[in-house]
Amino acid sequence: MVSNTATKVIGIIVSSTRPNRVGFQISEWAQRILAENIDSSSTQIKIIDLQKENLPLYDEPNPPKAGKPYVNSHTMAWSEKIAGIDSFIFVSPVYNGSIPGGLKNAIDYLWKEWTKKPTIVVTYGSTGGKGSNDFLYTLLGGALGMNLIPQEKTVLIPLSRSFYVENTSTFIDIDKDLLPHKETLVNAIEELKKLPYAQ
Amino acid sequence: MVSNTATKVIGIIVSSTRPNRVGFQISEWAQRILAENIDSSSTQIKIIDLQKENLPLYDEPNPPKAGKPYVNSHTMAWSEKIAGIDSFIFVSPVYNGSIPGGLKNAIDYLWKEWTKKPTIVVTYGSTGGKGSNDFLYTLLGGALGMNLIPQEKTVLIPLSRSFYVENTSTFIDIDKDLLPHKETLVNAIEELKKLPYAQ
Repeated sequence: MVSNTATKVIGIIVSSTRPNRVGFQISEWAQRILAENIDSSSTQIKIIDLQKENLPLYDEPNPPKAGKPYVNSHTMAWSEKIAGIDSFIFVSPVYNGSIPGGLKNAIDYLWKEWTKKPTIVVTYGSTGGKGSNDFLYTLLGGALGMNLIPQEKTVLIPLSRSFYVENTSTFIDIDKDLLPHKETLVNAIEELKKLPYAQ
Repeated sequence: MVSNTATKVIGIIVSSTRPNRVGFQISEWAQRILAENIDSSSTQIKIIDLQKENLPLYDEPNPPKAGKPYVNSHTMAWSEKIAGIDSFIFVSPVYNGSIPGGLKNAIDYLWKEWTKKPTIVVTYGSTGGKGSNDFLYTLLGGALGMNLIPQEKTVLIPLSRSFYVENTSTFIDIDKDLLPHKETLVNAIEELKKLPYAQ
């Protein structure tokens, strides 16, 4: 039997490239909650780890919005990867009040591959990553033309040193420590489902 | 004869890493005007080109504000370079409403090497780079604790395609095209001289 349900792909962008980042564990936490709240027969989840992508600092001759062909193979591969994703969860820390440079660099390589796509923003930090959250709402929702869930439904995760194994950046029990934010993320996923996919 | 006048170093940060960036020419323009308006017997100018620095995406285990030793040789070299600069001119384009990721990445590698230092912000773009200018005032003046000249004296350079040799990003006559901004930059340099150097 041929299914008429096209498979959609949700990408989780792991934004921190720091070796002992907590962002990868938080992204896996988001992935588990996402998997529990989507129809796996019609939706796939992909983790996109900017540490593994390891894009160089922007080296295309032309801005992506100019619509000229890309010249570098890493840009072509990044374009193909992001073009293949239908909606996104951005998981970002706060560095000096806004997002890591590596995330801004990865975003700025592309334009049409991002625009119109449904998106959730998840930020973390001592005050829940509010600076990065605001910045991403402006950047993704503004210049990039992405289709974000309402900001009042966004996911802000305040972190505490008490969450971690002593002298490490490893959660003692992430499901327990982030439990207060699970319902917020579930509600955000429901908001994501209401948004139209890009044409 | 031993001079009692310590030599101060002003660093010009070339923020764009794009191959056919106009930022390098604008930085050289700023350097010429700076050279005409400082005492060369007591002040040196250094160009710091982020394309040449080519820092990887942030890969230190600890945030710089934690005050722990750096582990990577590129971080140690970058720290030493920036620690040796007394004041700065940041020259930045606008990508999607704010600074290039490569500039944010370079800034976030360090903290104490930036803080308190007198700084001018020069931005450029179709609307003078206002988004990057505002972002840098918040980032450098806020989280980094740098000592910026008043924002009403800042340098915003609106660019026009008519400035460039056809189908290139090379200025036809940068001194002529940017002449309306020369006095603004000279005044900004005078403001810079009024700011106390970091202790």
